[in-house]
Amino acid sequence: MNPLPSTLLAELASIVGPDWVISDADRLLVYESDAQTAHNVAPQAVVLPIDTDEASRVAQILHRHRVPLVPRGSGTGLSGGALATEGGVVVGTSRMNRILEVDPENRRAVVQSGVLNTDLSHAAAPFGLHYAPDPSSQTACTIGGNVAENSGGPHCLKYGVTTRYITGLRVVLVSGETVWLGGQGREAPTFDLVGLFVGSEGCFGLATEVEVALVPVPEATRTLLAIFETLEDAGRAVTAIVSAGLLPAALEIVDQNTIKAVEASIFAAGYPTDAGAALVVEFDGVEAGLALEAEEAERFCRAAGAREVRRAESSEERVALWKGRKKAFGTMGRLAPDLLVQDATVPRTRLPEVLSRIAEIAERYQLQVANVFHAGDGNLHPNIVFDRRDAEETRKVEAASKEIMGVCVDAGGTITGEHGVGADKQKYMPLVFSPHELEVLRRVKGVFDPEGRCNPGKVVPPPDQEEGAGS
Amino acid sequence: MNPLPSTLLAELASIVGPDWVISDADRLLVYESDAQTAHNVAPQAVVLPIDTDEASRVAQILHRHRVPLVPRGSGTGLSGGALATEGGVVVGTSRMNRILEVDPENRRAVVQSGVLNTDLSHAAAPFGLHYAPDPSSQTACTIGGNVAENSGGPHCLKYGVTTRYITGLRVVLVSGETVWLGGQGREAPTFDLVGLFVGSEGCFGLATEVEVALVPVPEATRTLLAIFETLEDAGRAVTAIVSAGLLPAALEIVDQNTIKAVEASIFAAGYPTDAGAALVVEFDGVEAGLALEAEEAERFCRAAGAREVRRAESSEERVALWKGRKKAFGTMGRLAPDLLVQDATVPRTRLPEVLSRIAEIAERYQLQVANVFHAGDGNLHPNIVFDRRDAEETRKVEAASKEIMGVCVDAGGTITGEHGVGADKQKYMPLVFSPHELEVLRRVKGVFDPEGRCNPGKVVPPPDQEEGAGS
Repeated sequence: MNPLPSTLLAELASIVGPDWVISDADRLLVYESDAQTAHNVAPQAVVLPIDTDEASRVAQILHRHRVPLVPRGSGTGLSGGALATEGGVVVGTSRMNRILEVDPENRRAVVQSGVLNTDLSHAAAPFGLHYAPDPSSQTACTIGGNVAENSGGPHCLKYGVTTRYITGLRVVLVSGETVWLGGQGREAPTFDLVGLFVGSEGCFGLATEVEVALVPVPEATRTLLAIFETLEDAGRAVTAIVSAGLLPAALEIVDQNTIKAVEASIFAAGYPTDAGAALVVEFDGVEAGLALEAEEAERFCRAAGAREVRRAESSEERVALWKGRKKAFGTMGRLAPDLLVQDATVPRTRLPEVLSRIAEIAERYQLQVANVFHAGDGNLHPNIVFDRRDAEETRKVEAASKEIMGVCVDAGGTITGEHGVGADKQKYMPLVFSPHELEVLRRVKGVFDPEGRCNPGKVVPPPDQEEGAGS
Repeated sequence: MNPLPSTLLAELASIVGPDWVISDADRLLVYESDAQTAHNVAPQAVVLPIDTDEASRVAQILHRHRVPLVPRGSGTGLSGGALATEGGVVVGTSRMNRILEVDPENRRAVVQSGVLNTDLSHAAAPFGLHYAPDPSSQTACTIGGNVAENSGGPHCLKYGVTTRYITGLRVVLVSGETVWLGGQGREAPTFDLVGLFVGSEGCFGLATEVEVALVPVPEATRTLLAIFETLEDAGRAVTAIVSAGLLPAALEIVDQNTIKAVEASIFAAGYPTDAGAALVVEFDGVEAGLALEAEEAERFCRAAGAREVRRAESSEERVALWKGRKKAFGTMGRLAPDLLVQDATVPRTRLPEVLSRIAEIAERYQLQVANVFHAGDGNLHPNIVFDRRDAEETRKVEAASKEIMGVCVDAGGTITGEHGVGADKQKYMPLVFSPHELEVLRRVKGVFDPEGRCNPGKVVPPPDQEEGAGS
């Protein structure tokens, strides 16, 4: 990619200050990938505005020079969504990290989009409130990034994903114009542009301020860890719990490969390494009802063949039970240098069949797959460990990954549950959208970005690349 | 409006059968208004297709003849959203009333859009499931109409409004093309077109099939009725309950005028007519925790000055406690021949101040306003009773109504909580959207309806009518 003209860089620096325009190659390396390191491409520059006004003026300059604008939060994404794959300038939100308002009486807050997920919950804690969606990266990821990806998390089974909590957005369009979508604690009337923007993966503009709904911190929590001989048994326990009408806050499964990775690491959580799967079940809410719910869930686990069910009696024990799940992704690094974190969904009832087909694919390609799921939601993370210096293995990973996606889609699922399409899965979009539907998506993007310079090369494939993707 | 050419009517009849094309003036009268009878305009014809295929072919014919298409469910709407205000043909869903699939294991169902709200819940009941959003008109209104209006209901405080439960939509566009948005029990990846369609008030196309998420019927319920001397006291009880982190399923207030209307009717519910307000508080969920929650709520009601708190000990008693709320709208007909049902939202904490300003407006215009609210949500229904044969009174109603909207917007609220904008509130849109934002809304509509023939004259005012609305 050609370097940007120095006059343009100077113009940008005149808005945000010279310290906050990054254009030398070494420092740009930080921005060449997100947490899915398979994709690498450095932007032409990075600009870090401090507020909506600066962001708007930056966008106006880029617009005038016809340079693409690529929004970015903390870079914890897993689909290459914040990469300048077609050149352009990354506009990062890391300096836009102020909590503008916490309004406990109306259970809402307004934050700049670069505020970290957990920082928002900490700010709400004195009022007994928190921000519910809890992606695994929550100590590092931003609310703006969560908005872009419509992020989920373990507790989204009960509480729902990001879109349920976003009530207003201040957005800088690629033209530099600023609009408020929704706000004031109620969704805006009629066409739901807030809902449309949430999950649009930075393709419609840069959110600079976000109004969120806060919810009370649950009064109490009950956590169980059930150990199973097989993944299928764990799956049956999940089905039984859900079918009985129980509504756990979380229902999370890790498989044997994941357990082994965790137990071999410094985060060893005491999960038995000969187990086929472990299931974390958590209930929260008003103290009075929880014990009964937990007992009922325990009965279902035992009936499905659990060889052991551990109960957390204290918050330390709760942390211990969660540890094997929370550290799953981090410790997979032990298994091989690289990790392809996959993300798909299937109808909950099709999980057992999909899992056995994934195991069969892994065996055929002789790859190691470690599965982690938000089982209650049917959201699956089959993770393939590999060494990208081995070209042959890397090719196998790509082929296996594509087959796995096909299996999930054939089972009535879709190509992403919470990580987004980004640059990574653009090629899979024709698996789930017809050409006519893809055209509708392109036209919706065109409303906000008529010239196609807002995070280009993401999500919707260009018309000439529609074919062949499924092949 | 000119009658349609008989050749066009014959073409339509060849698709749906002659019985299902209505074009004689007498029978069209039924379709000249919805439940907000202030607006009256008969369509040029009504067509009642039986499925997506017929609906698609009907749309193609209308498209070829450049005739507007106006989607309609049961006609229980309250904003004139299903009226052919600019001429055209109403395409009604009343024959599309089949439940296509109930899938209890994945807690989903697929229905034709003309299925009645309660019929869906009845079909799910054998599996211990139901469809959560419960508008007051639920025995009469359709799921498709609920989708169009993003309908709420008393229990949406805890359960959320329609959009949370819609996972897929089959839509006939005004061109006659058919698309699936979402589906298979998971929201579609990326740009949330399902969410965008929900609440679009029939302006983007005709939904013919709807995939919904079902939820378990709560194990148990506890209901309280608290009687207060003043509306303000009831409001303070609501604030206390919500601030304490309790999450009732419903928190509903009726004011003195409403109580009087109910008690003077055959639906007399035993609410004291000298009370300033009555508050219904309901908790549901797992039996074990409910008694404690109800006790805590009762304490808050008494602390806020409740002179009496009644508890339902049986389901008959529960029905009795709810009666005054459920019959509120129906019985207001006793007070005067006509009723303008208003709908607005304000931040919960601004309710007391907004209520006193509404009372002041009512007094100044010498109008009778009866208030009903979903208090937990800050969703307000100030209803003005009047006699439309009295032209002077009708003018006062319009002026007062506009002032009330202004008060709600000034307090940080918006112009509709759940009834939609429709034809009724198009004029108020500039109160809550800037000209640039209105233009974005128009462009989003244009994606689905480039020639502006899908339910024209609704929601977004034409550019030349933007001004003056707020004046």
